[in-house]
Amino acid sequence: MRLVNGVLADNLNLRDRAIQFGDGVFRTLKVRAGQLEFWPQQYAKLVQDCARIGITAPSEATLLADIAQLAPFDHSLKIIITRGESARGYALPADIKPNRIVQLAALPAYAERLYLAGAKLVLCATRASWQPALAGIKHLNRLENVLARQEWSDPAVFDGVMLDRDGWVVEGVMSNLFALIDGVWCTPILNESGVSGVYRSILLNDIACDEIPIVECKISLAQLYAAEAVFMCNSLAACVPVQQMGEQSWPLLSGEIAARLGQRATSSLLFIGNQSA
Amino acid sequence: MRLVNGVLADNLNLRDRAIQFGDGVFRTLKVRAGQLEFWPQQYAKLVQDCARIGITAPSEATLLADIAQLAPFDHSLKIIITRGESARGYALPADIKPNRIVQLAALPAYAERLYLAGAKLVLCATRASWQPALAGIKHLNRLENVLARQEWSDPAVFDGVMLDRDGWVVEGVMSNLFALIDGVWCTPILNESGVSGVYRSILLNDIACDEIPIVECKISLAQLYAAEAVFMCNSLAACVPVQQMGEQSWPLLSGEIAARLGQRATSSLLFIGNQSA
Repeated sequence: MRLVNGVLADNLNLRDRAIQFGDGVFRTLKVRAGQLEFWPQQYAKLVQDCARIGITAPSEATLLADIAQLAPFDHSLKIIITRGESARGYALPADIKPNRIVQLAALPAYAERLYLAGAKLVLCATRASWQPALAGIKHLNRLENVLARQEWSDPAVFDGVMLDRDGWVVEGVMSNLFALIDGVWCTPILNESGVSGVYRSILLNDIACDEIPIVECKISLAQLYAAEAVFMCNSLAACVPVQQMGEQSWPLLSGEIAARLGQRATSSLLFIGNQSA
Repeated sequence: MRLVNGVLADNLNLRDRAIQFGDGVFRTLKVRAGQLEFWPQQYAKLVQDCARIGITAPSEATLLADIAQLAPFDHSLKIIITRGESARGYALPADIKPNRIVQLAALPAYAERLYLAGAKLVLCATRASWQPALAGIKHLNRLENVLARQEWSDPAVFDGVMLDRDGWVVEGVMSNLFALIDGVWCTPILNESGVSGVYRSILLNDIACDEIPIVECKISLAQLYAAEAVFMCNSLAACVPVQQMGEQSWPLLSGEIAARLGQRATSSLLFIGNQSA
């Protein structure tokens, strides 16, 4: 089920700059029992990412009407905002209008043992690019993630860790990384590489407190290996404790962060779809 | 006029990974009087770029049949090869099949004075990303070019020069750069950033000789400013002598390189379309 500008569609116009240049941004949200997780944060990040590259984001009401039309229940929901359509070339026509795509997919089936026994990671040879103009943005230029994802085929592997040019830890191919170092949860600074996910921001902005300090910092591979615990997070899988990467293994994450995040998630849910039934 | 897999079309399936991730490569060719310029080199580069990211390129015969169907005369011709369609996520289904898009556009109208008086450039604040896994490839992740192109609106500006993280000169937003330094034509090494264009390769591989030495090397901004002459090149504009960038100006390029390239171009032309008429 896919909508383009609110209309059921299977296709996008070939003049769309998403096709020509990857000129747009996206969001992936989890819908459980008809509830959109972290909608306020997801919409705020969409607006912020659009602004970073000069696209006017659709209104919240417009997107919620699209979503209501699709009536997701237990789904992964992807929103793509493209800059719109233009003739050949990088230059923008003055009157360009963004296109919005809203599409449903099945939720990935993460087994309970992933959360109980912990995830297995690989260390990717593909590095995360250096590009401060795009760092942090969930934009449509994701070829490096595609290449990194081809580095493993073992379905037991949850994600791959990507380093930057200088060997600093950046993120997973499809998730953000947190490491407990000297009693402080650390997550890589993403001002030169990587994607800043909504889950990561919620942890930093809403969960961090005196008892659970969480900071952004540079993390070397040696520091990651020496960390007391590691977890990955994204909007579909939530917090996933990490058990091993290659020869390295970590003790499993205590339940505290996960529990706090769960509370926060519950209070952030926005009812959509059949809420009036 | 656009073809998708050889069939006239206005749209691309929303499941195509070009839309989702910019997962593909492209070529832009010049067609003059029904003649495709540098076709053998363009096709070879397409195959090479596809191989770099693990896409099987269409056969030369398939693409030439598409092109013949469109019967370009004086046109810009763009070929896009996408990895194909898939469900959500970076992972690739085993049976994925590439999609090919062939589209015509008007040739850009470069005024004769551009070649006689020389081009005006700007120095872009947007840097070229560091990403050795993708450097040199003309792939569909072109958001940094889109951002850099928004740095000027003066139609008298031909292109903008992009530097890398460390300040080395990489390329133009839509062209490659050559600078005459100590009597040798130098063009930036593109193994960490940038797009290696077909015109650039022809200059390096076919035009370079004892009388016209051309080498790849690192070029600092100071070296560029101090260069004896500068030109930009791409497949639509060919060789464009540069007259100025900001406060800096250069003497115009002698005609020798342009003349040699012109000879080479003539011998590389492949007749298509009405060649049997």
